Amino acid sequence: MQLRGIAQVALSASPWTGLLFTAALFAGEWRIGVYGLLGAAASTAAAAVLGADREGLGKGLEGYCGCLTGIAVVVRLGASWQTVLLAVGAAAICSVVGAAAGRLLGRFGLPALTAPFCLVAGVLVIALPAGAPAPAAPALRDGFTTLTAAELGQAFCDNIGQVFFLDRWYAGLILLAGLLVASRKAAVAAVCGSGLAILTACVLGLPADRIGVGLYGYNAVLVAIALGATFLPLTPWTAGYAVAAAVASVPFTAAWAALARSHGGSAFTWPFVVTTWLFLAAAPALDRPGISSEKAT
Amino acid sequence: MQLRGIAQVALSASPWTGLLFTAALFAGEWRIGVYGLLGAAASTAAAAVLGADREGLGKGLEGYCGCLTGIAVVVRLGASWQTVLLAVGAAAICSVVGAAAGRLLGRFGLPALTAPFCLVAGVLVIALPAGAPAPAAPALRDGFTTLTAAELGQAFCDNIGQVFFLDRWYAGLILLAGLLVASRKAAVAAVCGSGLAILTACVLGLPADRIGVGLYGYNAVLVAIALGATFLPLTPWTAGYAVAAAVASVPFTAAWAALARSHGGSAFTWPFVVTTWLFLAAAPALDRPGISSEKAT
Amino acid sequence: MQLRGIAQVALSASPWTGLLFTAALFAGEWRIGVYGLLGAAASTAAAAVLGADREGLGKGLEGYCGCLTGIAVVVRLGASWQTVLLAVGAAAICSVVGAAAGRLLGRFGLPALTAPFCLVAGVLVIALPAGAPAPAAPALRDGFTTLTAAELGQAFCDNIGQVFFLDRWYAGLILLAGLLVASRKAAVAAVCGSGLAILTACVLGLPADRIGVGLYGYNAVLVAIALGATFLPLTPWTAGYAVAAAVASVPFTAAWAALARSHGGSAFTWPFVVTTWLFLAAAPALDRPGISSEKAT
Repeated sequence: MQLRGIAQVALSASPWTGLLFTAALFAGEWRIGVYGLLGAAASTAAAAVLGADREGLGKGLEGYCGCLTGIAVVVRLGASWQTVLLAVGAAAICSVVGAAAGRLLGRFGLPALTAPFCLVAGVLVIALPAGAPAPAAPALRDGFTTLTAAELGQAFCDNIGQVFFLDRWYAGLILLAGLLVASRKAAVAAVCGSGLAILTACVLGLPADRIGVGLYGYNAVLVAIALGATFLPLTPWTAGYAVAAAVASVPFTAAWAALARSHGGSAFTWPFVVTTWLFLAAAPALDRPGISSEKAT
Repeated sequence: MQLRGIAQVALSASPWTGLLFTAALFAGEWRIGVYGLLGAAASTAAAAVLGADREGLGKGLEGYCGCLTGIAVVVRLGASWQTVLLAVGAAAICSVVGAAAGRLLGRFGLPALTAPFCLVAGVLVIALPAGAPAPAAPALRDGFTTLTAAELGQAFCDNIGQVFFLDRWYAGLILLAGLLVASRKAAVAAVCGSGLAILTACVLGLPADRIGVGLYGYNAVLVAIALGATFLPLTPWTAGYAVAAAVASVPFTAAWAALARSHGGSAFTWPFVVTTWLFLAAAPALDRPGISSEKAT
Repeated sequence: MQLRGIAQVALSASPWTGLLFTAALFAGEWRIGVYGLLGAAASTAAAAVLGADREGLGKGLEGYCGCLTGIAVVVRLGASWQTVLLAVGAAAICSVVGAAAGRLLGRFGLPALTAPFCLVAGVLVIALPAGAPAPAAPALRDGFTTLTAAELGQAFCDNIGQVFFLDRWYAGLILLAGLLVASRKAAVAAVCGSGLAILTACVLGLPADRIGVGLYGYNAVLVAIALGATFLPLTPWTAGYAVAAAVASVPFTAAWAALARSHGGSAFTWPFVVTTWLFLAAAPALDRPGISSEKAT
């Protein structure tokens, strides 16, 4: 159930995907793996106590936000008994927020995605500033950004890895392998999302060092998986729609990160969540055959 | 009707509670009492002109946000003819915002709580900065915070007093007496909320001087009254649920206060409002006997 | 269709109004005119591709947010091939956001107004900071602000011109002429909104130089047109209601501008959008004959 919870970060319910994702976490840093599993367990347990429905529990739907919250706690506040307590408590609150989000958003036919994680983790990192000084605002280049081949490869992998706060290239590749096990379509979407994000960031002239560590692309990867391989049936039309969404998520990520940084916070996956909500909500309104079918409200 | 309006700040409709609350306001500072009454009167009058239903008016439901807004104006901008005008106008707008909030949130079965006050007062204090320099960000301690007995007692009372911006210990006790008159359950909830908030803030290692003046606990007190004694039937299960909510409101308050401070604003009771919304919205989704009964949408 | 799209910024569907508005844009600065037409064309085209309904397209409902977004891009980031690309892309995304906003807000019987523009333009100016240093926070005066006759006239015209980011007095007058062509009621509302905004800003003691360039009044003008001449039937009662809304929008604008400025952003027309939403949502709840008729949900 924990493994599936970890797989659900990328909207998959396969335990094998979860296993590979967990391997990627431990490959990135063993503490990240431990806190990730701990968070997934805590939020799943809390959801069970609170009486969440068994089917969602079994699919890991109550675990992914807790997993990400646990990781966010250890990445930002370090490993200690105090942060273990914090990770468990925060992950448990995730399941309450998840239930509320599910009920409120359900009225609009929208999924909660990672919003509970973003809210809970956002509160924690602002309430308990880590003391690390916020990096200075990046100097904006005129014209396009050019990357070296090494930066390009690093950016491609880290766009996937940063979904789990991982910035080692092989962790990104293990995650991609995990996606491939679950669904070929999702893996292709992730690859395209990562590539599109790099292209968009370069066209916008965003700073190369931040593009290189995947800070502008992880939301595009998730948006591509959500719109290109999960919530809409795949047609040429929806593929183009997913491309537009992935591209739009890049300036959105840059803006959210700039806002959050100035308060000692982080954008987390809010840009993914909001972009996906907007494009899903617009899909039935923009009347096209093949869109409105899957998303009955 | 004004007295009931003031009692409604703590979700009570008893005029005796309102009388004691008003006494607490004057005990804290006579100007706070005057502006509180003025605000309650202005928003009740505006609601009557705008055609609010008589029953809500009679219960004081149109007064509590105006009362708090009046107090916020005098606390932040001082007493003068200009601020009297401002308090009356702002309190009147509260009744419009309250009607809008009631209609929009009613769709989700959620109460408006103090959201209209938070919005109107938040706009005013950011639009009209008082010139007082924002206090520096508190240095975060590693490990737990320890309080002296005096700080502990002060924190306990001020957690209740700060609901009305009061920071004298006896004002907090008069408010508690007012709660006791209305409902023994509400008074017990307030006491537990205040205690839990102190404990949580210490475990999180928040700065002792801010804990001491009640800045982290007033939202927990309101959350405990709302979830433990007002909107959910009292069972062992909902008591535990209310405890979780009160605990969660503490880091939420710290985060919101940090964000607001950096813009010259204040968190007001937003953390109470949002925490209560999330836990109320989650309650029917998390299927438990005895929860969904009271909150028919 | 483009002309109508530009007219829709002031909630009008007349092509003559659009023509005069376009003339005002070119009078203000020819680049603003070009980017405005480009944005309106791009978002209308995107909406057509996405399958928006023909009737809305014909009325220009898909063009006004794109028009404003195009203008915001050139005003903030200057004219270049890169910003042309950006304006076209951003205007296209506006039509997706507009469809989403229409569907989500439609549940509450609320119009999207300029929210899609505010969101898209807000993301861009924060993601791509222009490098211009944010002006220092204005020193707040005690007591009322007094204006010279020249400042007064300039403020009156610029309150209308700033709807399109224009700060030349004759541009504001051409816009007013455009409104007059569409509806005498809308023109009167704009004049009253502009006057009320100046009065309110002076009573609040806001800085004279900012009042003079229309920075506090353009939202009041739009609020007055929306509530006084568009969404509610005109009665003495709704006229008073629109006056309250226009007055309330002034401190709201000051607060939002202060927040946005500290992040290198801009308030755009968010204060108009949110004020209008709140007053429209409150209108049916505050039961008065003649209010609830037009706004069936």
